[in-house]
Amino acid sequence: MSKVAVIMGSTSDLPVMQEAIDILKGFDIEVEVDIVSAHRTPEKLFDYGKNAHTRGINVIIAGAGGAAHLPGMVASLSPLPVIGVPVKSSNSIDGWDSVLSILQMPGGVPVATVALNGAKNAGILAAQILAATDKCMIDKILVYKEGLKQKVIEGAANMKK
Amino acid sequence: MSKVAVIMGSTSDLPVMQEAIDILKGFDIEVEVDIVSAHRTPEKLFDYGKNAHTRGINVIIAGAGGAAHLPGMVASLSPLPVIGVPVKSSNSIDGWDSVLSILQMPGGVPVATVALNGAKNAGILAAQILAATDKCMIDKILVYKEGLKQKVIEGAANMKK
Amino acid sequence: MSKVAVIMGSTSDLPVMQEAIDILKGFDIEVEVDIVSAHRTPEKLFDYGKNAHTRGINVIIAGAGGAAHLPGMVASLSPLPVIGVPVKSSNSIDGWDSVLSILQMPGGVPVATVALNGAKNAGILAAQILAATDKCMIDKILVYKEGLKQKVIEGAANMKK
Amino acid sequence: MSKVAVIMGSTSDLPVMQEAIDILKGFDIEVEVDIVSAHRTPEKLFDYGKNAHTRGINVIIAGAGGAAHLPGMVASLSPLPVIGVPVKSSNSIDGWDSVLSILQMPGGVPVATVALNGAKNAGILAAQILAATDKCMIDKILVYKEGLKQKVIEGAANMKK
Amino acid sequence: MSKVAVIMGSTSDLPVMQEAIDILKGFDIEVEVDIVSAHRTPEKLFDYGKNAHTRGINVIIAGAGGAAHLPGMVASLSPLPVIGVPVKSSNSIDGWDSVLSILQMPGGVPVATVALNGAKNAGILAAQILAATDKCMIDKILVYKEGLKQKVIEGAANMKK
Amino acid sequence: MSKVAVIMGSTSDLPVMQEAIDILKGFDIEVEVDIVSAHRTPEKLFDYGKNAHTRGINVIIAGAGGAAHLPGMVASLSPLPVIGVPVKSSNSIDGWDSVLSILQMPGGVPVATVALNGAKNAGILAAQILAATDKCMIDKILVYKEGLKQKVIEGAANMKK
Amino acid sequence: MSKVAVIMGSTSDLPVMQEAIDILKGFDIEVEVDIVSAHRTPEKLFDYGKNAHTRGINVIIAGAGGAAHLPGMVASLSPLPVIGVPVKSSNSIDGWDSVLSILQMPGGVPVATVALNGAKNAGILAAQILAATDKCMIDKILVYKEGLKQKVIEGAANMKK
Amino acid sequence: MSKVAVIMGSTSDLPVMQEAIDILKGFDIEVEVDIVSAHRTPEKLFDYGKNAHTRGINVIIAGAGGAAHLPGMVASLSPLPVIGVPVKSSNSIDGWDSVLSILQMPGGVPVATVALNGAKNAGILAAQILAATDKCMIDKILVYKEGLKQKVIEGAANMKK
Repeated sequence: MSKVAVIMGSTSDLPVMQEAIDILKGFDIEVEVDIVSAHRTPEKLFDYGKNAHTRGINVIIAGAGGAAHLPGMVASLSPLPVIGVPVKSSNSIDGWDSVLSILQMPGGVPVATVALNGAKNAGILAAQILAATDKCMIDKILVYKEGLKQKVIEGAANMKK
Repeated sequence: MSKVAVIMGSTSDLPVMQEAIDILKGFDIEVEVDIVSAHRTPEKLFDYGKNAHTRGINVIIAGAGGAAHLPGMVASLSPLPVIGVPVKSSNSIDGWDSVLSILQMPGGVPVATVALNGAKNAGILAAQILAATDKCMIDKILVYKEGLKQKVIEGAANMKK
Repeated sequence: MSKVAVIMGSTSDLPVMQEAIDILKGFDIEVEVDIVSAHRTPEKLFDYGKNAHTRGINVIIAGAGGAAHLPGMVASLSPLPVIGVPVKSSNSIDGWDSVLSILQMPGGVPVATVALNGAKNAGILAAQILAATDKCMIDKILVYKEGLKQKVIEGAANMKK
Repeated sequence: MSKVAVIMGSTSDLPVMQEAIDILKGFDIEVEVDIVSAHRTPEKLFDYGKNAHTRGINVIIAGAGGAAHLPGMVASLSPLPVIGVPVKSSNSIDGWDSVLSILQMPGGVPVATVALNGAKNAGILAAQILAATDKCMIDKILVYKEGLKQKVIEGAANMKK
Repeated sequence: MSKVAVIMGSTSDLPVMQEAIDILKGFDIEVEVDIVSAHRTPEKLFDYGKNAHTRGINVIIAGAGGAAHLPGMVASLSPLPVIGVPVKSSNSIDGWDSVLSILQMPGGVPVATVALNGAKNAGILAAQILAATDKCMIDKILVYKEGLKQKVIEGAANMKK
Repeated sequence: MSKVAVIMGSTSDLPVMQEAIDILKGFDIEVEVDIVSAHRTPEKLFDYGKNAHTRGINVIIAGAGGAAHLPGMVASLSPLPVIGVPVKSSNSIDGWDSVLSILQMPGGVPVATVALNGAKNAGILAAQILAATDKCMIDKILVYKEGLKQKVIEGAANMKK
Repeated sequence: MSKVAVIMGSTSDLPVMQEAIDILKGFDIEVEVDIVSAHRTPEKLFDYGKNAHTRGINVIIAGAGGAAHLPGMVASLSPLPVIGVPVKSSNSIDGWDSVLSILQMPGGVPVATVALNGAKNAGILAAQILAATDKCMIDKILVYKEGLKQKVIEGAANMKK
Repeated sequence: MSKVAVIMGSTSDLPVMQEAIDILKGFDIEVEVDIVSAHRTPEKLFDYGKNAHTRGINVIIAGAGGAAHLPGMVASLSPLPVIGVPVKSSNSIDGWDSVLSILQMPGGVPVATVALNGAKNAGILAAQILAATDKCMIDKILVYKEGLKQKVIEGAANMKK
C-alpha cells in the first residue's frame, strides 16, 4: 500500500498542513506526519531524507515558512518526489520568502512547489503522483474532480435563485 | 512502459523545454512532444487534457510564459500530475507573471511548479514521479544524484589545484 | 438590446463582482450573471466562451483571483471583448498573482484588465464599449461623469465649511 | 466608418505602438496617430480628450511609460473606451511603474489595460470593441483567431518533423 | 506672506493629508486646502494648475492614491514646486501603485515625492522650500529639528529609568 | 545670488548626476559639485550637512545608489530642502534599494525624491524651489515648459509627415 | 568581559528589539541599550559610532525601520561588527524599505543583516561573533542549539499523541 | 592564528566569491576555500558544518544563488558565525530568491547576510568579527576605513580639476 509523508518545520505550521493530511485520508492514502526542522534538527532531517524511500514512503510533502529550506534539503537527500508547501508565517515578507526559497531550486534537485499555504493541493498532487501509475487512483481523482464541478454548478444554481 | 508528455505554448519555448526532453531521454523514458497553446488552440488543449491519461501518458510537463495558463488548464482537464515550467519570455515582467500564473492555482487543482526556466528539473521531477512506485527508477535517480555529487567533488578538487 | 455577461470563478467572488452588476443596471444595460470556473468546470467554460457571441452577448466581464485563468481563457474562446477583474482572494500574494495572470496575455489574445477588485470600473468600461458605436450611451456616460464631478465639488464645499 | 485613435506620450514610444497601428490597418480600421504628452502638452491633452468623441473617433489607444498618466487622463476627459498600453521605457523600474500607473485607476474612470508593451493586443482589443456591436467585425476576429490557430498547428507539425 | 496649497484627490485622503496642514500651521504658514480630482474634475485641475502661481501660492502639496495622477498633472500645469504624497488607499497594491505613479515622472516635469502616507514630511518640506530663500524660516526649521532631538533624548532617558 | 549644491556618494555617480549640473547651468544658477560619501567620509558628510546653509547654499541635490543614505543623512543635518536622486548602480536590486532608501524617510526629516536616475528632474526641481519665491525664476520655468511643449509638437508634426 | 550595544532609532522599536536584549542576557553577555536616531540625533550617532570601540563595546546591534540608515551609518563610523535589524514599522512598504536600506550597503562598509524583525537572531549572532574567538561561548551556543532541537523533538512527540 | 572559511555552492560562484578571498588575504587572515553544495553534496555539507569549529575555523562565509540553502544549513550545523552572500545567478528572479532564502532565517539560527553579490563586504565583516575581540585587527580595520576615505577625497579632488 502507498504511503505519503507529511512533514513540516514547526508545530506552528500544522494548521496549514492539516489540509494535506485530511485530503490524503479522504483518498484512503496512508499518511505519516512528523516535525522535521531543517535548521533546528538537521540530524533528523538527514536521517529522514536518506531513509524515507527505504521505509515504504512513496511521496514526501514538506511545508515550511520564511527561508524555507526543509523541502529543498529533503529533495537533496531523497530520490522520492518532494512536494513543497510555502507557509506564510508571521514576519514573513508577504510570503515571498517561503515561495522563492522552495521554488527556485537549482538544476538537478527539483521541488514540486504548490501555492502559498496550498497544503490541500499538495495532498491532491501526492494522490495524482500515485495515480500516474495506478488506474484505480486515476478514477478516484476523476471522481474528486467531478465533485468540484458539482459544487460550482450548485453554487451557480443557488446564486440564480 | 511509462510515457511523459512535454507540451509548450509556443515553438519559442522549445529552447527552454528541450532540457526536459533531454533529461527524460537520459532516463530512458518515452517522451511525447507537442505545441498546445491555451490561448490560440483551446480545442486542442481540451482534447489533449481530456484524453492524455487514456492514451498511456503518465505525467504531463507543460511550459509557458507571460500569463501562463497552459499548465493550469491542463491540470483542470486531466487527472494526471501536471508539472508547470514558468518560461521567461520577452516582455515578461522579469518572469513574475509566468511564475505566479502557474504557481498560485486554487484549491482543488494543483500544478507542480518548478523554478523559472527550470525545464531540466521538470524532467527530473517527472522521473521521480514515476519512481514513486518503481524501485528501478529509484535506483536511476540515486545514480543521477551520485553523478551530481561527483561533479561537485571534481570541481572542488580542480579549484584547489 | 445590448447584453453584458458578468461571470466569475467562484461564488466567493460575488461581493466584489456585484459592483459591476449594479453599475450596469444603473446604465439600463441587461446583465447575465453566472459562475464559470476555468479550473473546476472547464466544459462549461468551453461552451460559454464558444457561444456567448451567438447568444446575443456583446461584452464579457470575467472576475477571478489567484492564478486567474478565467478571463484569458474566455478571451481565447470568444471573439467578444473580454474585461478582466483581478480579485484579491485569500492566500493571494497581495493580489499580484491575479493581476499578472490576467494582464500579461500573449500577443493575439487581449484581456481588457482593470484595477485589483475594480469590478465597478469593469461595469463602466462595458458601458463605454457599447458607447463606442452608440451616441445614446455616450450621453449616459457623459451624465455619469458629470455626477462624479458634482460629488467631488460637493465634497470640497463641505470640507471648506 | 469606425476610427481608432492611437496616441502616445513621446515619439520614443512609436516603435512599440506601431504594432497597434499595423494590426488595426490589417482589420481595415481607420487609424489616427498623434503624439500627446500629458506632462509636456497638457492643453493638447485636454482638447484631445474633450473632443475625440465629437470628431468621429470610436476608441482611443494610449501608450506611455514611467509614471504613465496619458491613458488615465484621456479616460478622465473622454466618454470613449480608452485602452492603455504600458510601455517599458529606459529608467523604468522594470515596467512596474507604467503598468501600475495605468492599471490602478480609481472607481469611476476605467482604463482597459493590456500587457507591458502589448500594443498589438491593444489593436486587437480595439477591433473587438467595435465587434461588440458589429457582426462583420466579429467574423473578422474569428478569422484572425483561426489564423493564430493555424500558425500553432503548423509550428507543431514542423517541430515534429 | 507665503502660502502653501494642500490639495488631494478625494475627501477620503483628508485624514492622511491633515498632517501636512497641521505642520504648516505650526510653522505659521498660510494654508489653502481643496479637493481636486485629476480623474473626476479635470477642468478644475486645469484651472488650479494653470493659475496657482498667479494667485499667490508658493508651493503645492498634492496627495493621491492608486494610479495617482494628481501630483504629476499639477506639476505639468504649474511652474511651482509640487510635492507629491502617495496615499495608501483601499484596493491599493500595498501602496506601490501610488508611489510609482508619483515618483517616476519623465524628464522635464519633476514631482518632489515623499514617503507613503508621508503628509507630515510634505508639510516640513514645503517649509524648507520657503526656507531656501528665507533666513527666518531656516531658524524655525532649526528649532523644529532641535525639538525632534529633544524628544529622542527624553525617550532614551525614560527608557533607561 | 542663489546656489545649488550637487553632491554624490561616488565618482561613479557622476554620469547620472551631470544632468542635474547641466540643467542648473542652463537656468544660470550657480552650482557647487562635490563627492560626499555617507559611508566612507562620514566626517565630511557631517561638516557638509551642518554648514551648507551658512555657506550660502540654498538647495542641496544628493545622488546615491544601493543602500543610499547620503540624501537622508544630509537632510538630517541641514535645514535646507534636500532633493534625493536614486542612482541605479551595479549590483543594485533593480534600483528598488536606492529608491526606498531615499524615499521612505521617517516623519520629521523629508527628502524630496525624484525618479530613478532622475538627475535632470532634480535640477529642474531645484530651480522650481528657488522659483517659489522668485518671479523671475518662475518666468524661466515657464519658458522651459514652453520649450518642452514645442519639442513634442515638432515631434508630432515630423511623425505625421 | 564582553559587551554588546543594542541601539534603535526610536522607542517604538523597543518591543521588537527587546528580544535581542533578552537573548543576550540569557547568554550572560553584558548589554548596553540606547536610543540613537540617525535622522533626529545625528550628533549622538556620530559620537556613538566613533567611540563605541573605545568604550569596551565588542559588537553593535542596530534596529531601525523605513529608510533605515542607523545600522549603515554606525557601520560607517565604527570598526566594530554591526548587526542590522530591519524593523517593520507602520507606513513601511511591507518591510521592503528597511530590509533594502540595511542590506544593500556599498563595498567597503558591511552590515550583518538579519531577517525582518529578527532581533532574537541579532542577539544570537552577537553571541556567535564573540564565540568566534571564545571556546566557552562556543559551548554555550552548542547548548542553545541543543535546546532548540529538544523543543522540536518534544513538539513532534506531543503532536503524535 | 585565525582562519576564515569561504565556501560556495558551485564553481560558478567563484568569480563573485573571489572578492571575499582577496580582501581576507589583504588583512593577512588565513583563508580556506571549498565547494560545498547543500543540494548536491549534502553529506559534505553535514561534515563541514558539524566540524568546522573543531578544525580551527573561526568564521564561515557561504555564498549561493537561487534557492540558496547553503548559508542557512551551515548555520544550522555550526556554532560559528556564518556570513551569507546572495549570488545573482542566471535564471535567478533578479536576485530576490537568493536574498530572501539567506536573509529570512527563522528565530534561533541567524545568518549574517550581506548585499547581493557583496562578497567583498563578507570578507570585511569576517575581519570585523575577528576584530570584536582583537585590538590589532581593530587597528587594521581603522586603517582600511582611512583608505576608503582617502580614495573618496582624491576622487573629489580629481573631479574638481
